Amino acid sequence: MIWPAHGSNPQYLFDALQISLPKKRIDFSANINPKGPPPILKEKWGELFSSVSDYPDPQGKKLRRKLAKKEKIAEEQILLGNGGAELIALIGRMLAGKRALIVQPAFSEYEESCRINGCTIEYHQLTSNEWALHIEDLAEKLPHTDALFLCNPCNPTGIYYSKSLLIKLMKECHRQETLLIIDEAFYDFLSEYESIVPFIKEYPNLLIIRSMTKMFAIPGLRLGYVMAAKPVIDQLESFQPHWSMNAIALQAGEWCLDSESYVEETIELINTERERLFDFYRQMKFIVSPSRINFYLLKDPFIRSQLPLFQFLITKGLIPRHTMNFPGLEGEWLRLAVKGPEENDQLMGAIEEWRNRP
Amino acid sequence: MIWPAHGSNPQYLFDALQISLPKKRIDFSANINPKGPPPILKEKWGELFSSVSDYPDPQGKKLRRKLAKKEKIAEEQILLGNGGAELIALIGRMLAGKRALIVQPAFSEYEESCRINGCTIEYHQLTSNEWALHIEDLAEKLPHTDALFLCNPCNPTGIYYSKSLLIKLMKECHRQETLLIIDEAFYDFLSEYESIVPFIKEYPNLLIIRSMTKMFAIPGLRLGYVMAAKPVIDQLESFQPHWSMNAIALQAGEWCLDSESYVEETIELINTERERLFDFYRQMKFIVSPSRINFYLLKDPFIRSQLPLFQFLITKGLIPRHTMNFPGLEGEWLRLAVKGPEENDQLMGAIEEWRNRP
Repeated sequence: MIWPAHGSNPQYLFDALQISLPKKRIDFSANINPKGPPPILKEKWGELFSSVSDYPDPQGKKLRRKLAKKEKIAEEQILLGNGGAELIALIGRMLAGKRALIVQPAFSEYEESCRINGCTIEYHQLTSNEWALHIEDLAEKLPHTDALFLCNPCNPTGIYYSKSLLIKLMKECHRQETLLIIDEAFYDFLSEYESIVPFIKEYPNLLIIRSMTKMFAIPGLRLGYVMAAKPVIDQLESFQPHWSMNAIALQAGEWCLDSESYVEETIELINTERERLFDFYRQMKFIVSPSRINFYLLKDPFIRSQLPLFQFLITKGLIPRHTMNFPGLEGEWLRLAVKGPEENDQLMGAIEEWRNRP
Repeated sequence: MIWPAHGSNPQYLFDALQISLPKKRIDFSANINPKGPPPILKEKWGELFSSVSDYPDPQGKKLRRKLAKKEKIAEEQILLGNGGAELIALIGRMLAGKRALIVQPAFSEYEESCRINGCTIEYHQLTSNEWALHIEDLAEKLPHTDALFLCNPCNPTGIYYSKSLLIKLMKECHRQETLLIIDEAFYDFLSEYESIVPFIKEYPNLLIIRSMTKMFAIPGLRLGYVMAAKPVIDQLESFQPHWSMNAIALQAGEWCLDSESYVEETIELINTERERLFDFYRQMKFIVSPSRINFYLLKDPFIRSQLPLFQFLITKGLIPRHTMNFPGLEGEWLRLAVKGPEENDQLMGAIEEWRNRP
């Protein structure tokens, strides 16, 4: 069978498995905030209708200005995008024909986008169950690398590589003239995030990708941004279609940036629930990745391929993310989002049932 | 000064002219339905909120199916896009390094997108005030052309080239192995449109671009599609970022397709208003392009550059589209949208004032 390349849109998974979509289901495969969008978005939804019939500001100036202020960088060091996926596509376009190195396992779009643009692709494979990043090993590969992709915190493991480690990596990439692309799509779920944004002033080869669709639960609207030195931003922008960000996303984005207490509440909820789940998994003799954010890898150590567990869960309407297309994981783990207490309870109930099956 | 490359977003025009945005203004530079979005969209706007927090269907299967049924082609002969502009960008990407011929004057994005992808660009220049398309002249250039762009009905003139003329062109392009890209962004404003869609089954080199943002007044949402043979669609899709169409646009698009009487009412309104405007202009000794749709070119024949008229109108809050970046027009015309009766009355009042100025 052909496994869907992404989580979310479970109908494609069920089509691939040739089973019908259960009526009641909980999607643990999409890593978005279980609290849903910030309340202000629902309150002001009616107002947004008037934005439908005007062209969106092609540069999204107001949101860009707000982000620049928040991140303490210049507006011209930010490019907005129609979701993180568009920004990755633009980066791939910029890298056409070059040599890319991807720290794996990682979000599949880096490879996809590089491949379609004729790049040579190599992996720096991290190994389970630690997925430790050794800069010295990585540095050896940089002489043959034009661009290095690192997802931090990492999708799919949820592991966060520290600022001190990243500083080493930035220095090494700068010395070896390698573009360093750090995807921080999930940075805002970290309670202990240390910003590396100020380094874009120092390192003209550093790109930081952010998504606004995960924390603010607006994947349907599409919104992300990339931060880098102006020449990089200008080049990426030259490849971007006109009016790429829709007007609803641009306005919603501004409101999201004002929702600071909502972010704090989310982090607290996620930390509490993740700890509760992890305690349970340890008790049940399952293994998890040392995630610091809103998803994690899960494995039943008594089976190698997790396919039987995957099938067990989906027939119960609980939809994990398979890991067939994550290099180094290849189905030996499942990825699951941390959701609200009730959903997590249902998941734990099913896991207990699985463990106690005859 | 640097003239904005597009209509709409008048703040960029006023920035360029270094004058402040008048409080009351009517934007004649954006060619969208003056009736606004179909009523169903406003009625059901509340329902759309639930789409915000799910990933959009990356393939937009439901809308694609609906379009395929309407156009009597296969789903796999359609690719949805984040507005027509994204589809033009994808086509430019597909043509990277090739030789493009653009029938001018035309929407500026074809050239923009080809240029950024390293294409060689030539023009087939049509001349005012007829802008007649002579296939024989065009055919002579095809041996040196990989892809030909034609906007029909034409933006900025509003002229519609007939099906019989297009059939000649399709045959010639097929014979000479030239990709033929026909942008029908405004086809649905024509009362006498004759579909060329069935020809995509016959000609593997034919691409037809459509926009849903003009007729349905949803430029803020972004939605368009391209129709072509499956191999072309597959290639374009391979360059498209994942989840490119947002969930709001996908659902709104389905409702728009059901709004047939709204389309008919719009065409009637536009035809009536355009005729009323054209009668008035003849009386005032102005020249217009023989438009059949919702915008037209306007010229005061007593001045060459229309800049003084342009400035006169914008200080009154009536914002035309300059033509500085349309090859062959270069400021000697203004482009104006046909809007509702009241707005058109205001425009005619200002034009009369201009004509009678001391």
